[in-house]
Amino acid sequence: MAKNVIGILGGMGPAATADMFQKFIRLTPADCDQAHIPLLISSIPDIPDRTRCILANGEDPAIVMENYVKGLENAGATCIIIACNTAHYWFDHLKQKSRVEMLSMIDSTIDEVVKRGKQRVGLLATDATLATGLYQKRIEAQGLTFIRPTELGQKEVMESIYLLKSGETDKATELMIKQRDELIQLGAEVIILGCTEVPIILAREIEQESERYVDSTLTLVRSAIDWYQTH
Amino acid sequence: MAKNVIGILGGMGPAATADMFQKFIRLTPADCDQAHIPLLISSIPDIPDRTRCILANGEDPAIVMENYVKGLENAGATCIIIACNTAHYWFDHLKQKSRVEMLSMIDSTIDEVVKRGKQRVGLLATDATLATGLYQKRIEAQGLTFIRPTELGQKEVMESIYLLKSGETDKATELMIKQRDELIQLGAEVIILGCTEVPIILAREIEQESERYVDSTLTLVRSAIDWYQTH
Repeated sequence: MAKNVIGILGGMGPAATADMFQKFIRLTPADCDQAHIPLLISSIPDIPDRTRCILANGEDPAIVMENYVKGLENAGATCIIIACNTAHYWFDHLKQKSRVEMLSMIDSTIDEVVKRGKQRVGLLATDATLATGLYQKRIEAQGLTFIRPTELGQKEVMESIYLLKSGETDKATELMIKQRDELIQLGAEVIILGCTEVPIILAREIEQESERYVDSTLTLVRSAIDWYQTH
Repeated sequence: MAKNVIGILGGMGPAATADMFQKFIRLTPADCDQAHIPLLISSIPDIPDRTRCILANGEDPAIVMENYVKGLENAGATCIIIACNTAHYWFDHLKQKSRVEMLSMIDSTIDEVVKRGKQRVGLLATDATLATGLYQKRIEAQGLTFIRPTELGQKEVMESIYLLKSGETDKATELMIKQRDELIQLGAEVIILGCTEVPIILAREIEQESERYVDSTLTLVRSAIDWYQTH
């Protein structure tokens, strides 16, 4: 029976959770089932919308997330990660409530940004991730320049994210490419995909030019595999 | 908090579990995160090899599977499905041990085969699924003709399945197409993809000609969505 199991608090949304699952499989060198990383995945999507809570006084997702973290612990998870950037607004709270180790997607992403050695860092993320400064503060603390979409551009980023959540991938991609291009025009040398839907929306673009992006999902998967292999 | 949650006993292998997860997302008409089916996924792959236990006196996977079913129940699953055909050899045993509802992939697949109204039914599955007669008995009980690969052909089916499990998708596909063609030559009018790796191995072929196949993963996902929507 597996001694260590990575728990994924997901469902925000399910497609982003499935993308994280696929990345665990792809990044694990395995020649048989048994060599893969043990995962427990909670994709229970009735967690209230994170952006609506932070920006529009919507229902608080914290209690529901706490409950699903507890579910993962009860099922045997020994280290928990969250498949949603915006939800990291509650990371310290959840970590305090949890009985097991938790790894942060913001930490793993910032570590990767620093490694890339570029000065000007763009961000594609939800309105709430921007408003709470989850990434901005950490980027500026590193002495790097933070670049965000224009106000109008950010509206399209958000529209693109909700389009993906409703299954309209092609329309989502069209809008997001436009905003990616605007960030580059504003001088971004590297772009954080700081919402777990964005690596799905820009999947083909990342494949063509992966050095331009820091995929928050991928950095957290790498960090969780590292944790598993050293524990 | 979700009242009903579908639990997936997976990890046999992880790629098949991820395929099942994707099929849940694709088959659920949802315009936002919250409209998706609540899922808890156990992809802890250290479950001893099912075929090796049944045919080569290998380690018994039953106790480990029981434990992971319990884990899913402890996390809140109210209905459990298994993302592996061969593991259904232990279905009745696990169902007896479980506190919650369980739905069988063999049942959902046979129901779909009957619906298709074809007489001659081929099977692509593991050696152990063949040896235990999981499908054969049920197909013949319906008065249908059961068609299996030749002995040599079945060796290639098995090789293809293990190739996928080790990440060698292209080689796996090449071998499986050959055996699919042989089943058709033997008269199969419809082919059960009776191992959860096979729909991944033949993904492109299914897309081109879906009416030729009964995908066991897909039938179980449909049956679980039905269960969720009526409970």
